Amino acid sequence: MNLKQLAKELNLSISAVSKALRDSHEISAATKATVIAKAKELNYQVNPFASSLRKQKSKTIAVVVPEIANNFFSLAINGIESIAQERGYHVLIYLTHEDFQKEIAITKLLQNGRVDGILMSLSSQTANILHLEEIKEKQIPLVLFDRVAESIDCPKVNADDYKSALKATEHLIENGCRNIAFLSISNYLSISNKRMKGYVDALRSNGLKSENSMIIECSNHEENNKSLIKKLLKSKHRPDAIFASVEKLALNVYDVCKELKVNIPKDLKVIGFSNLQTATFLNPSLTTITQPAYEMGREATSILFKIIEKRGYNMILEKTTLKSEIIIRESTLAVSKK
Amino acid sequence: MNLKQLAKELNLSISAVSKALRDSHEISAATKATVIAKAKELNYQVNPFASSLRKQKSKTIAVVVPEIANNFFSLAINGIESIAQERGYHVLIYLTHEDFQKEIAITKLLQNGRVDGILMSLSSQTANILHLEEIKEKQIPLVLFDRVAESIDCPKVNADDYKSALKATEHLIENGCRNIAFLSISNYLSISNKRMKGYVDALRSNGLKSENSMIIECSNHEENNKSLIKKLLKSKHRPDAIFASVEKLALNVYDVCKELKVNIPKDLKVIGFSNLQTATFLNPSLTTITQPAYEMGREATSILFKIIEKRGYNMILEKTTLKSEIIIRESTLAVSKK
Repeated sequence: MNLKQLAKELNLSISAVSKALRDSHEISAATKATVIAKAKELNYQVNPFASSLRKQKSKTIAVVVPEIANNFFSLAINGIESIAQERGYHVLIYLTHEDFQKEIAITKLLQNGRVDGILMSLSSQTANILHLEEIKEKQIPLVLFDRVAESIDCPKVNADDYKSALKATEHLIENGCRNIAFLSISNYLSISNKRMKGYVDALRSNGLKSENSMIIECSNHEENNKSLIKKLLKSKHRPDAIFASVEKLALNVYDVCKELKVNIPKDLKVIGFSNLQTATFLNPSLTTITQPAYEMGREATSILFKIIEKRGYNMILEKTTLKSEIIIRESTLAVSKK
Repeated sequence: MNLKQLAKELNLSISAVSKALRDSHEISAATKATVIAKAKELNYQVNPFASSLRKQKSKTIAVVVPEIANNFFSLAINGIESIAQERGYHVLIYLTHEDFQKEIAITKLLQNGRVDGILMSLSSQTANILHLEEIKEKQIPLVLFDRVAESIDCPKVNADDYKSALKATEHLIENGCRNIAFLSISNYLSISNKRMKGYVDALRSNGLKSENSMIIECSNHEENNKSLIKKLLKSKHRPDAIFASVEKLALNVYDVCKELKVNIPKDLKVIGFSNLQTATFLNPSLTTITQPAYEMGREATSILFKIIEKRGYNMILEKTTLKSEIIIRESTLAVSKK
């Protein structure tokens, strides 16, 4: 049943039926009632593309994230979806798999009006922001969350990465660690750099040196990461603690320690940014810096809808910082070494 | 830059430009070349809704799942997305949060042609399939995966739930268990019932009775589930093993055992269906029945595209069963009790 057939059934023009369905003032109340009754009777449904074309609204937002099989992002998407559902919006999900070229291709795809707005968390390989500038030029509302780019002017939602990394490092120092290694995930990402700066500043303000050999740049290749960690733990100057800047690196450390029979926390303390639901059941349970992932998703989406509903709003550079929580568990316990 | 402006620039009719861009035989090769060159020069992009309206294709598929912060579903979505991306399709994600009414509302929303096909895994509360029948009546291609409904005629992709539950129960019996409890997630879901049947049949063929008091119907309320498990473990006739039909229930068991200081595997063996990446790092590591989640997502999507590309194909009732794997770890280890 399309509009044409419905109009024929009603013996009205297509334009009159369309106007009646849109509640136009040009159509009498009586005609509207007749049209709506007939539409219901014949189970007529509005074609969403014709409708979108008319309204220039897709009622759809896009979420571009590196991966979905990751507790932070799946919780953030839950938050995003909760707001979108309240507003009657559809959510398109795009995964970059940490690939900069794929991220560029996705943003190109989104430039033609398919979505009313974009929420994005950058890949670890995103080396520049030209593709984000293009989105801005096309005046498509854009909000970055978690993995944001410092240099682009758009609303951003973050957790307090610097501060929580500083506190996490201080926690390790308080529990006796003097030679703390840091596992970084990317040179490009500002959150990675902020976390590293928190680590370095905590060392310095406690009279400890930050050494380059203790900052390990990891990647998306699990096997490579594990051999880097193995090399680190077998080195002469081996660390007494490891600070993992992302969840999967903390799990890589657990894996290597199991293999090398390194006892956590006795021989090595471990802390990591993580939203792992099983952190408390790990052997030993993992001390985490837990970001408010769900809340970050909700906050970013609320801002996006403000921009969608009120063009020009994105000129106000909203920057929201939410608080992460350090949850102390067994992996950083001070243990006597005798 | 829209089609109208482009036509004006070219001094051609809108219809001619549109036909040229669609490579119509009515337009000469020379004109086509001119139109394409100008479109590129002016960075003209096709409006996706106008384009969809013309082609009656949205190049979008919908994925309807109970939740996303769950390892099985996030891995399955990864698989779905990998095929969709190869085909240049967009993926809309809808979460039912295990709510039957929400599932119905979502399927209503998808009936108006917004998507070319639907992949679906039912909520644990889905009590009937009228909403699925409606999708079928509208001739929207539909493929169910994992949590399927037996009574609807459409392609289905499953893992071997009965067989793997049977084997898992036999594994517990071999390791000395005689009083095995089963945690069910839903009376409605066929996978839940198949898993339970595998458990019951394994007990019987080994000369053990299946008792109703040992089959616990859990829900989506974590606290309720934990008190049910606590009650079970405090009862006179307490089990020597628990078989969790879904991942989160296995974690609830770990939680309760920690609280009650029940030693796994000495006092209680635990096995569960799970795609938990950290299963091996748990204390103790968890024996799992691991479904091929990623492959199930890919398989379901491949079948969906066959139907989308070849109408009528959904009359062939494809039923695919993939193999799960039992990964034996510490939580089911035979330990002497002295």
